[in-house]
Amino acid sequence: RCFHFCKLPGRVMGIRLLRFTSVVIIVLLLVAGALTALLPTIKDDKLPNSRREPKTQSQSALDSFTLIMQTYNRTDLLLKLLNHYQAIPHLHKVIVVWNNIGEKTPEEMWNSLGPHPVPVVFKVQTVNRMRNRLQNFPDLETKAVLMMDDDTLVSAHDLAFAFSVWQQFPEHIVGFVPRKHISTPSGVYSYGSFELQNPGFGNGDQYSMVLIGAAFFHRGYLEDFQQQPEAVYALIDETQNCDDIAMNFLVAKHTGKPSGVFVKPVDIRNLEKDTNSGYSGMWHRAEHLLQRSYCVNKLVNIYDGMPLKYSNIMISQFGFPNYANHKNKM
Amino acid sequence: RCFHFCKLPGRVMGIRLLRFTSVVIIVLLLVAGALTALLPTIKDDKLPNSRREPKTQSQSALDSFTLIMQTYNRTDLLLKLLNHYQAIPHLHKVIVVWNNIGEKTPEEMWNSLGPHPVPVVFKVQTVNRMRNRLQNFPDLETKAVLMMDDDTLVSAHDLAFAFSVWQQFPEHIVGFVPRKHISTPSGVYSYGSFELQNPGFGNGDQYSMVLIGAAFFHRGYLEDFQQQPEAVYALIDETQNCDDIAMNFLVAKHTGKPSGVFVKPVDIRNLEKDTNSGYSGMWHRAEHLLQRSYCVNKLVNIYDGMPLKYSNIMISQFGFPNYANHKNKM
Repeated sequence: RCFHFCKLPGRVMGIRLLRFTSVVIIVLLLVAGALTALLPTIKDDKLPNSRREPKTQSQSALDSFTLIMQTYNRTDLLLKLLNHYQAIPHLHKVIVVWNNIGEKTPEEMWNSLGPHPVPVVFKVQTVNRMRNRLQNFPDLETKAVLMMDDDTLVSAHDLAFAFSVWQQFPEHIVGFVPRKHISTPSGVYSYGSFELQNPGFGNGDQYSMVLIGAAFFHRGYLEDFQQQPEAVYALIDETQNCDDIAMNFLVAKHTGKPSGVFVKPVDIRNLEKDTNSGYSGMWHRAEHLLQRSYCVNKLVNIYDGMPLKYSNIMISQFGFPNYANHKNKM
Repeated sequence: RCFHFCKLPGRVMGIRLLRFTSVVIIVLLLVAGALTALLPTIKDDKLPNSRREPKTQSQSALDSFTLIMQTYNRTDLLLKLLNHYQAIPHLHKVIVVWNNIGEKTPEEMWNSLGPHPVPVVFKVQTVNRMRNRLQNFPDLETKAVLMMDDDTLVSAHDLAFAFSVWQQFPEHIVGFVPRKHISTPSGVYSYGSFELQNPGFGNGDQYSMVLIGAAFFHRGYLEDFQQQPEAVYALIDETQNCDDIAMNFLVAKHTGKPSGVFVKPVDIRNLEKDTNSGYSGMWHRAEHLLQRSYCVNKLVNIYDGMPLKYSNIMISQFGFPNYANHKNKM
């Protein structure tokens, strides 16, 4: 009703109207602000479970990944690899898990050789544990993690492609090193690569694990890893091995599908021989592979079943490096 | 309350209790039966939209596929191919779309040379149309369709693998022949294969279509195809071409993702030269490729937009035929 205002003379009514309108506008703005504050925050930390389309806009958290590289006794290789990996497209940040207990990190040298394309964080550890790299680092800002061993070089082309594949299979470990387990008539499992017999499901070979030492996976799995039975941590600590097998068990249990998607690398190199430290990596220990078979069987006990599933999907990049790499003679 | 029964002497109470219990049990059974009848029937004819695990038990409708092969003027090739395809694992039935108008089908000869591993149905057509093969045939009992041109031979190994891939990507066209469209500065699209310039999204090439003349897809898309604008049928009939491009548009619109998944064939052969008919297929017409570019632009008009999306995923079979086909020199 305008009765109150309408009775007033024109000028006074004009001022009153103006004040009224101003109050209304301010109230509306306050209400809008309050509503915005009340909007639920989109929590996207949970693991997705469907094939996702790669986004074209650059959104930091969704369109980039964090490299986690654990290092022990091979600082020369670490620095060589940091120079390579710091310039990989879509890299957001590097987290170096420093397993050289009591030794200073190369942070000073790193800073003196700046500027760098991305930030590098050195996480100093108190105990030299294989599973240190599987902590749920608060420094992680991206959905995707790229985990690399400190002696492995994968080309930028391979990584850019594998990252785009991970974006389409975000609930899987998307990486470059496939392995498998096999059943034996005794019911005891054995671990191996393609030199081991095929599991016998149709033609060709199968893999049931993708090793995390050269792979992309969702950060949610680092959160999940913190919730595993104590026996899993004890196993990894006892063997200083098998953290990657444990992760594959975890992912397979979570998805009910094969844990990994294998992307065939064009250019992957092991730089072990190039180190001055003389240290050549855990996998040279005599018992390394036997340990891994042992771990498979122990994990089946701990998880009360074999969750790993087989896959024979091998993904390559269409038309790269050879633009006719799919040509057939038809 | 048990007051009514409790007052009665033991024997009478026993009989009453027994009768009461029996009535209760019968009522419960009736209720359970009614509930079961009321359970919603699971309609699985709709297109799924998530990655599906291959089933290990043999369930006819889910674990097998129907081959649909259209044929015109190449009955010698048809029969040669039928001998090959009739024995492909997981094949449920063959539907031959008989475009030889007025001519008798080879059904008699087929029957005289029985028994055969699977039933073959000859669908006699009244008009020789390219899109005859895209009818929603009532003979279809499986979720999966394998569509093959009548001059294309794909090995059983390739088909078995591609079928297992389709089972993991049931909403896509999973096949052996990738093609693409490209944008030009004028806004006019052009159609081609890998000899055409790359679309320019990062390294390597991309494909935006998988041709249906050698591919698996979900039968739901045949249903969908019946619901398209009249202009689409007119276009296909006018050109006697482009039914496969139209199907890729349909699938891309439905999923919002790349329509196809390319599986690199190990052994795919074009038997055109082997025919006695002298007929060498539509793609030899001078205007064939120009028509296909024309179709891409017409379909963009009809659908008011370009729904095709690019992919660079190339899938091969891990460890087959060469058990070390993924070995790297690391």
